[in-house]
Amino acid sequence: MKKNIKLVSTISNQEYPFERIEEFAENGESLEVEIGNLEKAQIKKGKFLWERYSDFLPFSKIDESISLGEGNSALVKADKKLLRFVGLDNLYLKNETQNPTWSFKDRGSLTCIAMAKEMNESVTATISTGNMGNSISAYGAKSGIKVIVFVPEFTPKEKVMAMGIHGATVMKIITPDYSEMKKNVLSLAKKLDLRIVSGNGPIRVEGYKMTSFEMFEQMEKEIPDYIAIPTSACGHIRGIFKGYQELKQAGIISKLPKMIIAQAHNNSPIVSAIKQGKKQVVPFSNFHTVAEALTTGNPMGGDEIIDKANKYGWLAEDVSEKEIIKSQKRLAESGYFVEPASATSLYAIKKLLEAGKIEKGSSIIMILTGSGLKDSKVLKYHKADIREVKLEKVESTVSEILLAK
Amino acid sequence: MKKNIKLVSTISNQEYPFERIEEFAENGESLEVEIGNLEKAQIKKGKFLWERYSDFLPFSKIDESISLGEGNSALVKADKKLLRFVGLDNLYLKNETQNPTWSFKDRGSLTCIAMAKEMNESVTATISTGNMGNSISAYGAKSGIKVIVFVPEFTPKEKVMAMGIHGATVMKIITPDYSEMKKNVLSLAKKLDLRIVSGNGPIRVEGYKMTSFEMFEQMEKEIPDYIAIPTSACGHIRGIFKGYQELKQAGIISKLPKMIIAQAHNNSPIVSAIKQGKKQVVPFSNFHTVAEALTTGNPMGGDEIIDKANKYGWLAEDVSEKEIIKSQKRLAESGYFVEPASATSLYAIKKLLEAGKIEKGSSIIMILTGSGLKDSKVLKYHKADIREVKLEKVESTVSEILLAK
Repeated sequence: MKKNIKLVSTISNQEYPFERIEEFAENGESLEVEIGNLEKAQIKKGKFLWERYSDFLPFSKIDESISLGEGNSALVKADKKLLRFVGLDNLYLKNETQNPTWSFKDRGSLTCIAMAKEMNESVTATISTGNMGNSISAYGAKSGIKVIVFVPEFTPKEKVMAMGIHGATVMKIITPDYSEMKKNVLSLAKKLDLRIVSGNGPIRVEGYKMTSFEMFEQMEKEIPDYIAIPTSACGHIRGIFKGYQELKQAGIISKLPKMIIAQAHNNSPIVSAIKQGKKQVVPFSNFHTVAEALTTGNPMGGDEIIDKANKYGWLAEDVSEKEIIKSQKRLAESGYFVEPASATSLYAIKKLLEAGKIEKGSSIIMILTGSGLKDSKVLKYHKADIREVKLEKVESTVSEILLAK
Repeated sequence: MKKNIKLVSTISNQEYPFERIEEFAENGESLEVEIGNLEKAQIKKGKFLWERYSDFLPFSKIDESISLGEGNSALVKADKKLLRFVGLDNLYLKNETQNPTWSFKDRGSLTCIAMAKEMNESVTATISTGNMGNSISAYGAKSGIKVIVFVPEFTPKEKVMAMGIHGATVMKIITPDYSEMKKNVLSLAKKLDLRIVSGNGPIRVEGYKMTSFEMFEQMEKEIPDYIAIPTSACGHIRGIFKGYQELKQAGIISKLPKMIIAQAHNNSPIVSAIKQGKKQVVPFSNFHTVAEALTTGNPMGGDEIIDKANKYGWLAEDVSEKEIIKSQKRLAESGYFVEPASATSLYAIKKLLEAGKIEKGSSIIMILTGSGLKDSKVLKYHKADIREVKLEKVESTVSEILLAK
């Protein structure tokens, strides 16, 4: 690690040692890396993320051998159909499904594995039903670090196998409540002297913030008014905002974008708190949502996000199951097949515009967090034009379609 | 289109008009775009592929609105475990699963849709059971072009739905023989005045060649000795080689890499021909291979690839079902979960090295063509460490794993 960095808790501002295995302060506050000398930090040239953004990273060096080629994902202007759907003039899609394990998690896995190497740890663990477990399993495989993934027993076989093929040990935990299971397993970290990385850990956040530096370069130094992010464990949104904050501290930008927190209505612990004017997370349990990647019902460190939302004027919106499916279809009809969680932002933006909370002229980036291939069972909710045709009937059937155009 | 380009057949060198709907010459030869003034062509700076490589493309302009952000995929050095497995010192992975629909096909779909726009076509079609149908469906959705995908009746529901969600019309053709079905449907193109794009069409090849320009930039202008490519319809390998040939014609490079043609033993029409010293494709039918993306049993235009292999000293190797699964696992244990077709190259390289046809010191790029998520049913062939554990047993179970490390 570099010498001019600190690990501090986000609300009480207490300092902690980096060697610490736990990812949160004793009182549940999230921890954060403070980078020193930011006023001199610059974006450099380089092929790898960590070369270009090294001034902003806590590591003295990241070894190329732990990388799977994460980042450098495309930022594309939304087409007219999407703009019409949400009612906006200026929307961009940052496609994080173009990462090595097809979700944004890979940026955080890079830094988590860099940290494990730095601390000479040979085993790392996580709790996950999907993207996170997949990503850590792949990065562990690449760098020769043993990975243990704790999954709830309801996790589909395909997802478990996709972790297993990378060589991870997958433990299905037999327990009735996933939230409780999560807390219980996390609490074992110190006892086992095992780093159990969570979606909101301080080192993951250091990976996610590189997305902002990249977007800054891709937008030719323009800062969008808003960035919409589907929010579950809270690490992603925290990282993206931290990236822009650090660019501001470095004197590279003067304006901060506002975040838009998008959650599924059926599990909206952060959005509910903000809408109800509460300072603490509103816990959800025993819920169901098609947006399976948004299943943190009581996110640790969530209070800090609510705090930031109030301080910086962020927006928050929840989206019904029907609206999620509709958004997924709308994105697919513009060429993007994303998992339902990624689609929540689209409808959240639409609702915030309709409610007059966002102006039509605003510029917004929405982050496509994970591939639609990760959850093929939602395909059943979508209508599709699929026909069985005999070979000798192909000509007449196609002729009819062409005539109808 | 630019003025200084021609469409010619690859063996008889006859010229054809670009307006032509069919993708092959009457005698089955593949067609190819000839770019004029290559001696002056340069790689430029730019965010988009078509900006950087515009001197090499047949289009005067590609409109940003048809792009989904394809290309710019990572090129990563293989780790020591992979090098040991194949017995090589110098191996690179070009990860084409980092494309918008998670396969290499997207580069070709970009140029196919650019062509459709150029020709004012409002409908485009393809025949596919997977990556190709998916990719064209997504690009059609983005650009407002109606897509029809012809699939054999045995295509899994998930794949059909993934095309359908983008708004394509999917026609399951009821017929006993997929190869016959393909030929029959392709032959309808002229009658229906409908462009039915194939994996070996001349315009797709123009998209694939951009991969080579990218690899040239990523390798810091070094030319690898070999590039290993799983080969089915033959368009991909043709495109990659064409890219390097054009760089040579432009005077930018002086050496050409040799291609390695990798196929599944159970369906090896090109590799069998080369091994048997034949000049024509050896047709396969009624075969089965886990490498589902390599199912062209009698590839149109395949003779030209055999011709090039002889002329330029390319290598060819086929890989058994067991070897494919072994390679898929090996890649996953280094962090890359790819579809079985992508894994064939790894074992092909290993066998060619063992047979002394490749030297240990050679530098090789292997192209990872498609995501493992595209075919989750092969997961059953892999062993994985999956355990059911009661919450109260987590501590002792993990302790045992940690002790064993």
